[in-house]
Amino acid sequence: MSEQTVIDERIDHGYTSDKDAYLRRLKRIEGQVRGIARMVEEDKYCIDVLTQVSAINKALHAVSLGLLEDHIAHCVVGAANESRETGNPQAVQEKVAEASAAIGRLLR
Amino acid sequence: MSEQTVIDERIDHGYTSDKDAYLRRLKRIEGQVRGIARMVEEDKYCIDVLTQVSAINKALHAVSLGLLEDHIAHCVVGAANESRETGNPQAVQEKVAEASAAIGRLLR
Amino acid sequence: MSEQTVIDERIDHGYTSDKDAYLRRLKRIEGQVRGIARMVEEDKYCIDVLTQVSAINKALHAVSLGLLEDHIAHCVVGAANESRETGNPQAVQEKVAEASAAIGRLLR
Amino acid sequence: MSEQTVIDERIDHGYTSDKDAYLRRLKRIEGQVRGIARMVEEDKYCIDVLTQVSAINKALHAVSLGLLEDHIAHCVVGAANESRETGNPQAVQEKVAEASAAIGRLLR
Repeated sequence: MSEQTVIDERIDHGYTSDKDAYLRRLKRIEGQVRGIARMVEEDKYCIDVLTQVSAINKALHAVSLGLLEDHIAHCVVGAANESRETGNPQAVQEKVAEASAAIGRLLR
Repeated sequence: MSEQTVIDERIDHGYTSDKDAYLRRLKRIEGQVRGIARMVEEDKYCIDVLTQVSAINKALHAVSLGLLEDHIAHCVVGAANESRETGNPQAVQEKVAEASAAIGRLLR
Repeated sequence: MSEQTVIDERIDHGYTSDKDAYLRRLKRIEGQVRGIARMVEEDKYCIDVLTQVSAINKALHAVSLGLLEDHIAHCVVGAANESRETGNPQAVQEKVAEASAAIGRLLR
Repeated sequence: MSEQTVIDERIDHGYTSDKDAYLRRLKRIEGQVRGIARMVEEDKYCIDVLTQVSAINKALHAVSLGLLEDHIAHCVVGAANESRETGNPQAVQEKVAEASAAIGRLLR
């Protein structure tokens, strides 16, 4: 397999190569949300509930960041190559704008 | 029921008066997390997955904010009354510090 | 000075007792913003500029958190005492709602 | 000017093409920070100070987002082209990792 192929492989996959890892993390987050519901059910102290909510926020941030990194490495870089080949910058501009909008939604 | 009792009632409950509402919201968030897992499973476009993650962040923020407001209205105000009665400011200082630490964890 | 007075003193001040500390921190943040402008002026690497922006975010968060803690210890607790005396919960409810709205704006 | 040159131009600049706009925005943020110091100086109500801090947070987020978008459109896409030409994915991988780390610092 040539170096060039290695780049293409890397570029063409996105998050799907880590699909199982993402699914495991989401499963864990789902369990954390259920854990919070249980704490509320049992009238646990509000500050302890809030600490758990912060833990979920952190876990979700990690998932977002992973997806964003995959998006940039996959879709943006793929589109950059496409724009390079076609001489039309539209493909890459669109993907960059999409990534930026997604980051903006996460920062809010 | 006297006005005074109304204040006490309000003060002594915390989030437990809205328990069912919190449980419904957490149930919905749990479903949203499962929905994201399904999107990953089906190789949905990463930006669309990220949009859903942002929606969960927002829903969790709303839950946090509700719990914080309940904590301040309940525990901080309750401790203020306690400190007022005992003449010892420690009770209220502790609750204020706890609230502040919880807000700090959410801001991070 | 009686214990009771100590509580009242604590309650009646808010951030004004730490005014100089806040002013020093804001001065430093102002300098950090000017530092970023200088980096942009000198075409510094964007990632290094972003690292500095993150540092300002952090410094501003610390200021917000301090102000919030002062607000809760000062205005909310003061209003709790007022409501306790007048038997009218409106004063404390208003301050709690204000604090919660301010936290919500910071979380967004 | 050929289409290809247009892409290169876009790629080679980063935030420097909008330098004046960034400097104006940073000037305004600097003024906002000074405005907050003045509010503290004059013992303005803490909630009003906090509202202004939230406004600065928002303005800084907008600057961060602009810089990030420029970084992706400039450095990441430039490195993608370099990796494409040299057949060595390291250049693009480094820039993607840098962008991701910067986003992570902003999300925290």
